Amino acid sequence: MPDLSRIAIVLVETSSPGNLGSVARVMKNMGLGRLVLVDCRADLTEEARQRARGAGDLLEKAVRTSGLGSALKSFHLSVATGSRPARWFDRCLQPREMAAELRGLAADQQIAIVFGPERTGLTNEHLQYCDWQVGIPTNPAFPSLNLAHAVAILAYELSQGLSEPPSSEAARRLAELGQIEAFSQDLEGCLSEIQFLKKQNPQEIMMTLRQMLARASLDDRDIRILRGILRQWKWYARTKGE
Amino acid sequence: MPDLSRIAIVLVETSSPGNLGSVARVMKNMGLGRLVLVDCRADLTEEARQRARGAGDLLEKAVRTSGLGSALKSFHLSVATGSRPARWFDRCLQPREMAAELRGLAADQQIAIVFGPERTGLTNEHLQYCDWQVGIPTNPAFPSLNLAHAVAILAYELSQGLSEPPSSEAARRLAELGQIEAFSQDLEGCLSEIQFLKKQNPQEIMMTLRQMLARASLDDRDIRILRGILRQWKWYARTKGE
Repeated sequence: MPDLSRIAIVLVETSSPGNLGSVARVMKNMGLGRLVLVDCRADLTEEARQRARGAGDLLEKAVRTSGLGSALKSFHLSVATGSRPARWFDRCLQPREMAAELRGLAADQQIAIVFGPERTGLTNEHLQYCDWQVGIPTNPAFPSLNLAHAVAILAYELSQGLSEPPSSEAARRLAELGQIEAFSQDLEGCLSEIQFLKKQNPQEIMMTLRQMLARASLDDRDIRILRGILRQWKWYARTKGE
Repeated sequence: MPDLSRIAIVLVETSSPGNLGSVARVMKNMGLGRLVLVDCRADLTEEARQRARGAGDLLEKAVRTSGLGSALKSFHLSVATGSRPARWFDRCLQPREMAAELRGLAADQQIAIVFGPERTGLTNEHLQYCDWQVGIPTNPAFPSLNLAHAVAILAYELSQGLSEPPSSEAARRLAELGQIEAFSQDLEGCLSEIQFLKKQNPQEIMMTLRQMLARASLDDRDIRILRGILRQWKWYARTKGE
């Protein structure tokens, strides 16, 4: 089994206790150990524990957070799951493509695979925090996978795809998502300051910018440069106002 | 989606109604429509229907049989699922290898993927009816997959692997398993007749012979030749006794 300790399964607003247990079980089957529950709506009921079988420990030690943005701060890359391609992603990866792309990252990069609520999947609000999108090909007449089945298939592909270590020269190191988010907020401040966001739909604009940043696969140096630009911009605005 | 109508999911002695429903759902998600229930121990309860969601039709039209041997008669190839490699199989295929091998068969070959009872998996008694074995790689410390999760992963690999049509020159056409079973029984009769089976453990010997036949990937012509040999043998025994 490959080492999958850098990969976390992030469940957003899960409502079924049975699904919680079932996800924990298949995670442990596939060698995944990190579970993050964002705004979880399901209790750890008897059914949850029963469906988890011997994987109850994953449920006990799951990290619970409020808000997807804060849940993802310490990760380097987040992958949204869903069958509907969202318009701002360049493309929707196949599971196998996702695993191959992840193999290209350095071994210490923290990766979050994000699953939405059972009924709706991830909303646009959630998707803006994600860098890539992955979709499991399904029957168009009956596309909606059970949450644990989707986790099973992606966890299986990850354990297959990451069983070979990355070649060290190709390994990329991305900036932490928290850094990118901090930059986004800094940028939003600047854009408000120059009243750019006043004229447009500010949320829509920021979402588009965040997605641009996500697609750019920024590393630490990129972020230093971008933040340097904003600092310079602010200095310029200040000196001009004097 | 590829055409998977030639593939059936065969569940042996399933005991959980929830698993029945869950298997039906993921089968339909993945474009599989044929479900065979062998000596099924689970009723179509409310839980089964609920877990099936919109795939209740697969449960309704599932073929119910008694005994794995008779269930497999009209198939050309059967694949046993299980994490423990059985000693008489040459090797335990990875899911992706299985899908690649199946792609090499002609499009009209009927294929059964066989899943054992939840607690025990397939027994040696069941395995003698199977041609190949496939195993999903799992965490050695926590290997036991939920039935529906195992179906999800293999159905996913099948839908991936069979999405390309086979090249016509490479397509192989295997004999129906019923034909091979009929030959095995004929052979057993002959071996009893010549008192070969008396000295040995007859069940053990027949199991080994059945597995040899399975590994040989027999086609119709092979079977005609083998049955011809037995006919000739019987004729010889009869004329000698006169």
